[in-house]
Amino acid sequence: MHLKSYFPILDWGRRYNRQTLTSDLVAAIIVTIMLIPQSLAYALLAGLPPEVGLYASVLPLVAYAIFGTSSALAVGPVAVASLMTAAAVGRIAAEGTVDYASAAIMLAFLSGIMLALMGLLRLGFVANFLSHPVISGFITASGIIIATSQIGGLLGIKTEGHAMPDLIMSIIANIGQVNWYTLAIGALALALLLWIRLDLKNWLARFGVPKGVATIVVRAGPVLVVFLTMALSVFLDLGARGVALVGDVPQGLPMLSLPAFDIAVIQQLAMPALIISIVGFVESISVAQTLAAKRRERISPNQELIGLGASNIAAAIGGGYPVTGGFARSVVNFDAGAATPAAGAFTAIGIAGATLLLTPFLAILPKATLAATIVLAVLTLVDFSILKRAWDYSKADFAAVAITLLGTLLLGVEVGISLGVGASILVFLYRSSQPHAAIVGQVPGTEHYRNVKRHQVDTMPGVLSIRVDESLYFANARYLEDLVINQVAANPGLTDVVLMCSAVNAIDMSALESLEAIHHRLADLGVRLHLSEVKGPVMDRLAGTEFLDHLSGQVHLSHHQAMLAIADVRLRTTELRPEQTGT
Amino acid sequence: MHLKSYFPILDWGRRYNRQTLTSDLVAAIIVTIMLIPQSLAYALLAGLPPEVGLYASVLPLVAYAIFGTSSALAVGPVAVASLMTAAAVGRIAAEGTVDYASAAIMLAFLSGIMLALMGLLRLGFVANFLSHPVISGFITASGIIIATSQIGGLLGIKTEGHAMPDLIMSIIANIGQVNWYTLAIGALALALLLWIRLDLKNWLARFGVPKGVATIVVRAGPVLVVFLTMALSVFLDLGARGVALVGDVPQGLPMLSLPAFDIAVIQQLAMPALIISIVGFVESISVAQTLAAKRRERISPNQELIGLGASNIAAAIGGGYPVTGGFARSVVNFDAGAATPAAGAFTAIGIAGATLLLTPFLAILPKATLAATIVLAVLTLVDFSILKRAWDYSKADFAAVAITLLGTLLLGVEVGISLGVGASILVFLYRSSQPHAAIVGQVPGTEHYRNVKRHQVDTMPGVLSIRVDESLYFANARYLEDLVINQVAANPGLTDVVLMCSAVNAIDMSALESLEAIHHRLADLGVRLHLSEVKGPVMDRLAGTEFLDHLSGQVHLSHHQAMLAIADVRLRTTELRPEQTGT
Repeated sequence: MHLKSYFPILDWGRRYNRQTLTSDLVAAIIVTIMLIPQSLAYALLAGLPPEVGLYASVLPLVAYAIFGTSSALAVGPVAVASLMTAAAVGRIAAEGTVDYASAAIMLAFLSGIMLALMGLLRLGFVANFLSHPVISGFITASGIIIATSQIGGLLGIKTEGHAMPDLIMSIIANIGQVNWYTLAIGALALALLLWIRLDLKNWLARFGVPKGVATIVVRAGPVLVVFLTMALSVFLDLGARGVALVGDVPQGLPMLSLPAFDIAVIQQLAMPALIISIVGFVESISVAQTLAAKRRERISPNQELIGLGASNIAAAIGGGYPVTGGFARSVVNFDAGAATPAAGAFTAIGIAGATLLLTPFLAILPKATLAATIVLAVLTLVDFSILKRAWDYSKADFAAVAITLLGTLLLGVEVGISLGVGASILVFLYRSSQPHAAIVGQVPGTEHYRNVKRHQVDTMPGVLSIRVDESLYFANARYLEDLVINQVAANPGLTDVVLMCSAVNAIDMSALESLEAIHHRLADLGVRLHLSEVKGPVMDRLAGTEFLDHLSGQVHLSHHQAMLAIADVRLRTTELRPEQTGT
Repeated sequence: MHLKSYFPILDWGRRYNRQTLTSDLVAAIIVTIMLIPQSLAYALLAGLPPEVGLYASVLPLVAYAIFGTSSALAVGPVAVASLMTAAAVGRIAAEGTVDYASAAIMLAFLSGIMLALMGLLRLGFVANFLSHPVISGFITASGIIIATSQIGGLLGIKTEGHAMPDLIMSIIANIGQVNWYTLAIGALALALLLWIRLDLKNWLARFGVPKGVATIVVRAGPVLVVFLTMALSVFLDLGARGVALVGDVPQGLPMLSLPAFDIAVIQQLAMPALIISIVGFVESISVAQTLAAKRRERISPNQELIGLGASNIAAAIGGGYPVTGGFARSVVNFDAGAATPAAGAFTAIGIAGATLLLTPFLAILPKATLAATIVLAVLTLVDFSILKRAWDYSKADFAAVAITLLGTLLLGVEVGISLGVGASILVFLYRSSQPHAAIVGQVPGTEHYRNVKRHQVDTMPGVLSIRVDESLYFANARYLEDLVINQVAANPGLTDVVLMCSAVNAIDMSALESLEAIHHRLADLGVRLHLSEVKGPVMDRLAGTEFLDHLSGQVHLSHHQAMLAIADVRLRTTELRPEQTGT
């Protein structure tokens, strides 16, 4: 039982049969065809030789098949993680050097260890601190940066940097060196890819091609563009005309090995590895959950961390770079009918085969084709509508989107996402430090108490009912003190103050001291302090404190009971008073 | 009106009369006598020449009298800020150098500018993030460090460092060089000061000395000890016997000047200045508010920031170092009857006079006397009872105290307090990311709904009422989704889910997306989603969103009304069904 939760393969493996095998094989073939050009292109985006992208699409898929819980998730190199890899590794080594490649391997290794540890320690909740606005702003900015970074590849000029200012400056500086053959190949590839995506299916349908076949042709389209531009490269001898080609690459699959351990490199890569891990996990888990929901399956976030961790460790051992679950490929995998994680393992076999067959021919592939593949892939990431939706809903959420978007564009991926997370947490803390509070009164005909400013309610003279809409903790403890004391000062003749605690989910020690101070001040003024609707967990904590022992008023189950009790006490004291005076 | 709020002196100055003048003068004399030895000692603690402590007790008091709002607060050098100054300045210059003194001046200047800016920008709430447990742990740890740092002064040996490991190591390393004359003078001063504090009053009373006179003698006690040890120093020629004396100091008051601006120094001091500012402000405002409450006066936190800012700028101009409102001296000032901030200005005149008169004689004062003064002053800071109280109340608060205490002792003041603040915020975020939630039912005979696990309540079959005890935001949005979906899965046959939002104080965009996802999942299962007790501010935000427009259920004012409405709809559908089937 326990073993099964760490090795989901033991669970679905027992139920494996001929039908699931067929489904998985079909899905694997389609995803393999789709992954080949993407893997080559994303490796290039990460500043690595294209074959590294293929390496990163073999072992990680096998590892995920063993440890992952999603039947449809397809892991491998993705656009955003590739950009982040380039940004992180580019700081410690020059592109094209051995150090660069081994730093990328180390990045995958660190990221894998971190993800696996987070999974084993059940720290999946950490990913929740990447809010939706932050993720949206970050993905959109990354898409823009990636598309811009490919302009160089499409024009045959050199560009530098992983944030907009550097990229734009280097494009402007080198715009004179445009290679027109490269531009032509790039434009052709871009146009073909666009046409394949938008029109090919309808066009094939017009020729009576069955829908199933058409779908497969569309998905194979990018591979066809790769072959076409390879052919053009040979026939027109593009290499001699200054078009950048992929060039000779080592044949076959790489030897399995562990990354070289260098403390200085590890220190520099630790923070980027953590950010890539969390961003990759969030991207992956959202896809996995979306697809699981469609099949009424459940995803275990902590086991997914272990699955992705194993994939990244496998990527490092197999000479790759950081991988995660990709959106587009997972949807394709799902649509193609992948029934179990085994589909991923079959895809791995497909990619391994393709790597053995393809590498000899990659030398003649124009890099512009891969640039075009990337541009088309990332344009779907860019979504400015989040800005308007956030603006309409709340200015705080808008600020989080805008800070992340601008931070990422102008200062780079790591700074951008850190600023976004920091800003969202600060906004949350600021708000909770200045909580909303309301004076409440009884909604006529009910036992319900609401804000006197928003509702037509009845209040009892001499009794102040305050509802504080926040947990009471250090950041708002002083605020609470000021609030109550000011309200009491503004309402002379009070006999009772009732703090309605329906929205108070916790009271920490600082807040308890503030409550004691409030109680003390009210006692000096001869005003009793009551609490109402104190929740179980809060009451558990207060029980046995001096505050509760010495409370001048009482703790009432509901606010209505508090009001009834106060009215009752009044009635009795008014009845008693003449007698007492008489004796 | 506006001017008066920035210059409180314009307000109380107009009401100034002979009576307040007399009160202020009496208080000023008593505080002056108390401040002289303290100022000398704290400057030494800060690694500065003793006369700097006197300089820091002149202009800052005048500045506070103009800008401050507390009638009793006495500003000047304090123990904790002196330790923090030593820690910050010690990193960039060696004690006794000109650079050291000018860095201390720059620290006061930066701190002053920061405080004043925070006041003008109304950022006083930032101080609330120093929770009570963090402050307590920090002050206790500082007291221990300060007392330990004075052991060297009492034994006549050299010590180094501003955290316990370094201090203890250097005491152990140098313990062989104890100067027995220094030890004797130190022990004498310590014993006398202790006796003065604990017994002198009773002793004088036994001799029939009136209480008022006795109080003044007790407060003048430390000055008497200073004079006594000075006399011993001369008669026994202690300087020649290896006892460290204060030595020659420049006579008179320093020239007014601005600190030397050096960008590198400013960069290194910026963070320590911010921490000193916030810690000093928290210390000061707690004293001011405690004393104001006794006189039913109000303190304006943001104006206090301006007052302390002006004091620190004045400290820099007058050749001092960071100052803040001190606890002991403010209480003395209060008890002595200080009626307005003018008492501080008179104290400043007193200290200035003393500086002119005293400096020639300071040369013969043994440093051990000042060390004894410090030890006695800081022992009142040490309070371990907070550990037990925090442990009893909540483990999270205990963790905050323990982390701050140990962090400060072992890693130094700045790291210690930063760790404490960081830990308290993380605990708060972690808790709010894993909120408490309850299935609720009706308390019989009331319209009140409570946790089914804690109360004897009635529930309606087919209806699930969930109360989530936290604002819904990015950190717990996914948690909410899991919670509701799991609950629905565990309760087959549901027709309605009601989210009771009495404890939901905000819903951010990430949580809204989760609500939409929940709504979608429930709709797939044919379950209606309702909300109840949604607060005004939350409703304002939800109004106009697609979520509310398409909600399968309704938003009800109270949870009871939600239940009535659901029962009503059921009744009507059951009544209608036979008819509908009939047609």
